[in-house]
Amino acid sequence: MLFFVNDYCEGAHENILKRMTLDNYFKNPGYGSDPVCESARQKIRNACKKNDADVFFISGGTQTNQLIIDTCLNSYEGVVAVETGHIALHEAGAVESTGHKVLTLPAHEGKMDARELRNYVKSFYEDENHEHMVFPGMVYISQPTEYGSLYGKAELKALRSVCDEFKMKLFMDGARLAYALGARGNDVTLPILAQMADVFYIGGTKCGALFGEAVVFAQMKAPPHFLTQIKQHGALLAKGWLLGMQFDELFENDLYTTLGARADAMADRLRYRLIDRGYKLLIETPTNQVLVVLDNRVMKALAKRVRFSFWEVIDKTHTAVRFCTSWATKEEDLKELMNIL
Amino acid sequence: MLFFVNDYCEGAHENILKRMTLDNYFKNPGYGSDPVCESARQKIRNACKKNDADVFFISGGTQTNQLIIDTCLNSYEGVVAVETGHIALHEAGAVESTGHKVLTLPAHEGKMDARELRNYVKSFYEDENHEHMVFPGMVYISQPTEYGSLYGKAELKALRSVCDEFKMKLFMDGARLAYALGARGNDVTLPILAQMADVFYIGGTKCGALFGEAVVFAQMKAPPHFLTQIKQHGALLAKGWLLGMQFDELFENDLYTTLGARADAMADRLRYRLIDRGYKLLIETPTNQVLVVLDNRVMKALAKRVRFSFWEVIDKTHTAVRFCTSWATKEEDLKELMNIL
Amino acid sequence: MLFFVNDYCEGAHENILKRMTLDNYFKNPGYGSDPVCESARQKIRNACKKNDADVFFISGGTQTNQLIIDTCLNSYEGVVAVETGHIALHEAGAVESTGHKVLTLPAHEGKMDARELRNYVKSFYEDENHEHMVFPGMVYISQPTEYGSLYGKAELKALRSVCDEFKMKLFMDGARLAYALGARGNDVTLPILAQMADVFYIGGTKCGALFGEAVVFAQMKAPPHFLTQIKQHGALLAKGWLLGMQFDELFENDLYTTLGARADAMADRLRYRLIDRGYKLLIETPTNQVLVVLDNRVMKALAKRVRFSFWEVIDKTHTAVRFCTSWATKEEDLKELMNIL
Amino acid sequence: MLFFVNDYCEGAHENILKRMTLDNYFKNPGYGSDPVCESARQKIRNACKKNDADVFFISGGTQTNQLIIDTCLNSYEGVVAVETGHIALHEAGAVESTGHKVLTLPAHEGKMDARELRNYVKSFYEDENHEHMVFPGMVYISQPTEYGSLYGKAELKALRSVCDEFKMKLFMDGARLAYALGARGNDVTLPILAQMADVFYIGGTKCGALFGEAVVFAQMKAPPHFLTQIKQHGALLAKGWLLGMQFDELFENDLYTTLGARADAMADRLRYRLIDRGYKLLIETPTNQVLVVLDNRVMKALAKRVRFSFWEVIDKTHTAVRFCTSWATKEEDLKELMNIL
Repeated sequence: MLFFVNDYCEGAHENILKRMTLDNYFKNPGYGSDPVCESARQKIRNACKKNDADVFFISGGTQTNQLIIDTCLNSYEGVVAVETGHIALHEAGAVESTGHKVLTLPAHEGKMDARELRNYVKSFYEDENHEHMVFPGMVYISQPTEYGSLYGKAELKALRSVCDEFKMKLFMDGARLAYALGARGNDVTLPILAQMADVFYIGGTKCGALFGEAVVFAQMKAPPHFLTQIKQHGALLAKGWLLGMQFDELFENDLYTTLGARADAMADRLRYRLIDRGYKLLIETPTNQVLVVLDNRVMKALAKRVRFSFWEVIDKTHTAVRFCTSWATKEEDLKELMNIL
Repeated sequence: MLFFVNDYCEGAHENILKRMTLDNYFKNPGYGSDPVCESARQKIRNACKKNDADVFFISGGTQTNQLIIDTCLNSYEGVVAVETGHIALHEAGAVESTGHKVLTLPAHEGKMDARELRNYVKSFYEDENHEHMVFPGMVYISQPTEYGSLYGKAELKALRSVCDEFKMKLFMDGARLAYALGARGNDVTLPILAQMADVFYIGGTKCGALFGEAVVFAQMKAPPHFLTQIKQHGALLAKGWLLGMQFDELFENDLYTTLGARADAMADRLRYRLIDRGYKLLIETPTNQVLVVLDNRVMKALAKRVRFSFWEVIDKTHTAVRFCTSWATKEEDLKELMNIL
Repeated sequence: MLFFVNDYCEGAHENILKRMTLDNYFKNPGYGSDPVCESARQKIRNACKKNDADVFFISGGTQTNQLIIDTCLNSYEGVVAVETGHIALHEAGAVESTGHKVLTLPAHEGKMDARELRNYVKSFYEDENHEHMVFPGMVYISQPTEYGSLYGKAELKALRSVCDEFKMKLFMDGARLAYALGARGNDVTLPILAQMADVFYIGGTKCGALFGEAVVFAQMKAPPHFLTQIKQHGALLAKGWLLGMQFDELFENDLYTTLGARADAMADRLRYRLIDRGYKLLIETPTNQVLVVLDNRVMKALAKRVRFSFWEVIDKTHTAVRFCTSWATKEEDLKELMNIL
Repeated sequence: MLFFVNDYCEGAHENILKRMTLDNYFKNPGYGSDPVCESARQKIRNACKKNDADVFFISGGTQTNQLIIDTCLNSYEGVVAVETGHIALHEAGAVESTGHKVLTLPAHEGKMDARELRNYVKSFYEDENHEHMVFPGMVYISQPTEYGSLYGKAELKALRSVCDEFKMKLFMDGARLAYALGARGNDVTLPILAQMADVFYIGGTKCGALFGEAVVFAQMKAPPHFLTQIKQHGALLAKGWLLGMQFDELFENDLYTTLGARADAMADRLRYRLIDRGYKLLIETPTNQVLVVLDNRVMKALAKRVRFSFWEVIDKTHTAVRFCTSWATKEEDLKELMNIL
């Protein structure tokens, strides 16, 4: 069976496993208070050119979204996301389970439009009944988005400006951030992100780590007693250095961006070959998710030999599907997929 | 620096790291739906002699306690624990953060007394105002307890009987279960546990795994749509097979109990040597936590070369401290500790 | 100042105040366990022709919605409502604050379309990732809707049928139910409601009481230990008989429907006169909310002498506003409003 | 049947019912934004000699406790109360249902000891693991306590001083405050309370109103967007003026304290007569709750003709019970009770 179903079906980059094996018997204090975590934190601060950033390591993406949104919002506030945002659709109501509403706006290839955001928030404050409504306290975006598209620097600035105008926090979900940083045409570097976002995270789980997300508080400080809040959310890993160790490796010699760029290049090759063969892409994006329209008969035949994701129904005889490359995808995999197709 | 501060300061047993490295590029579906998890589940069912048990893998202990208690209780119910129970004291209010009260009883060397439990619950139902109070819906115990003591089979039966009488669930926190299973004099095997507890977990984090706890629904089925509930709690690991893989190794050739027994034996050696040297134990237990009373001057001198835990103040000049052995403790460590003492 | 801003700006029908004054020194047990509440419950059961219905009295509408939705849903379930539903927009996230997502569908003059509901739920269960999503566990509708429109019997049956197909509960918010029961053309009587809805409430606050909503569990039993759950939600009134007393009066000689019919008739008169004068209604409804389009200059002039509600912007020079009649509106009020217009 | 079971079994003082009847058709804006509420707020500010106090009206006591504790605490904080505190025992876990732990200390005739509080909080901060524990963020006391006892000025000052030392808020539950203000020997006036407590409430439900508690933010401002938070908690009464109206009457000519003093005097008479007849009081207090020890046979006989509360078992043949007077208790009631005894 060939796997193009997601970017988290393999273990971790070999540097990480080697490091874990090497340091296995080194005795560390728990909960992230160890020197390995501190080293990883400093590498991330350096990469972000933000030396006073608070950095925390959390095991998973939904957990991180739930934690950050719950601890950064007041109880009368909700978080604004696009309808296709991961927190709005695919996290089983994890945000609502902490008491906060997800307020939704239309998605444009997965992205939020700054003007629509501004109209929405402006209308909210102009509504004479807004005190009976959920206040928009934070804006949630993903880079790359759930559709694989990217925000450009100008788009981020426009969103930031609306956040400033209405005193909302800007939170960026970077579960797949490596694939944004490594994409052709990307103009949003880590230092730029750290200037734009109040808080964001650098995804490990989908970008070469076994698990783990590095949360960076860039334009705000971490909420008070954040360690206690992590613990209360059930998100404090006892052997915290396992998280630090992985990011310490990923941020050595820019491995993180390199892994992303490799997967993006694989995705680009796949796109070119698909177009060559006459397939139609659902949308054009530069990252590791390839959305392509298949004839349903082709799709069914393919499903016997390849695992991929259903995306959306196009019409009675066509369906959009997703092929996902990862940091571990090889040229042979691509070839085999094209052969099967 | 010598570490006796806890049982989770090293990585994992080498079998686990080898397996991870070996299978690193094997492509698995996510969220625990993979064959490795299924293999581990079956080994655990076999070890428990309970072939219809639902088994789930969760990353950490507080997370597991929070998840199980929240999903197994009705909203008008709380969980009964002893005052020294981990959920009552050291989880930053994780249980309360999901809306449930922790109802406390006195602890006897960390254990709950079945008669006191019965009196408490009986009084509750006899109180004419009990509909204005939190219903006791579950009993939480730890094996071994937070003091390293063990429930015997007869004690468990007595608790079970009260639970049956008042329709409460019995939940056992087995974060350190290996150290109970491997202890001299222990008469509570996994199959007995599986007959007594509605739900319990087999701790990995503190017993030789990198992280992970195996939840066993023994005398009850898992709550409906439990996967969704795990996700909603932020506790669903994307690469679920990492958890399964670790338990697949721990339950190969009974490695789990072996590791526990080894640490217990190390703790016993330490106890004998301490007693030999005239030190007084705070309480006598057969597991990996050694609670000993030190003169404060000795304690302070020791703290410069050994990491251990403060336990409790005995009097103005004496303090009880904890030395913890683990699956990875070596005879040299013990010798060095005794030399320093 | 003339008030057409809402239907809860006066006290209560005089029968209620007389009764309260008359029985003021009668000593009642607390929390709804008194004979007055029992009498009111029985009258409501009779009016609903549902003698085994559980009936509870709660002080306010948002409180009732929050309580019912939270106690009737499992934690992995959300409630489906139209985008203009009161719980979706105007309750400050009260539902989400208890952990449940409000899942929204388009509104058609405030109503939910049964076919759209079915498509949505069917797609949910067909989605291979639905275990990572919030399950639709309940359908919330309002009668009359927030736009003053009514569901007909056939429409309710269609919704009920979808609920049955997918095992969802049907919950009806009847904050303004008197104005539905008393409306020309209404074919949904209380007994029909009690056959269609799992649970619904008969609004008092907006229909002639000082405060209070009567919750009727019709096609389901009340959740277990419901009194405890009411208490836990902070919604248990100490002097519960104050609620029972009001409904005991409202259900004496069908006062409830009579009050609704009177307000509807006043609204109809207002509609006819507005149309006569050439004003355009935003939508045609038979209940006590009159939605009319005004020239902005007219609106601004009017606002100096009449309190009404802003509804929505129509175009640059026109706005829809709401005039609300109530059980206490008099012909003189209408005349004065028409004079000012 | 004679009622001494509680102080909330009658309606309201006649001034309140008269006012409600008189103003019944006056049209008020909703949610407490009316002139009646403003008048009541100002009277309360005057009575407290605290002209900048934020004052809000809430319908019930449990609701108020839940709301204040949830909105004034950070999520990592709990509230410290004595074991017999209403929030700890008799509110069905309403505080925990909002995510906050109730941390308990021993009760001394219902009161908290400032030294014990200080020891507890000091130990908390000295514990090296306190970041894994619930922070004490607020102290909850009741005046009078659940046992009818009173804090003196010096005791309040001592508690305040501990709160200042450790930056905790001091919250006072005044559900029965009238009976404290009117008690012989009481030295804690409203202005003193307003200097000592960050926030407290003046109970209406148990002190002559139909329902309602007046929350006074004295040494702190109300939490941001408090109206929205009240709404979100389901605690915002539509016809808010009904609450304001009642306090406007209770604070006219000091009616509130007068009603309390009258009930206290009745309770004192009852105490003297009981002592005269040889009965033993459980504890000596100056407020409206009379705790007396009865022979079980006397208790059973009495229960056929009088409603009172069971308090606690004294020994096999004796039980402590509570007789509660209220603002509406008459000399005839006392006489009849003594006759029956």
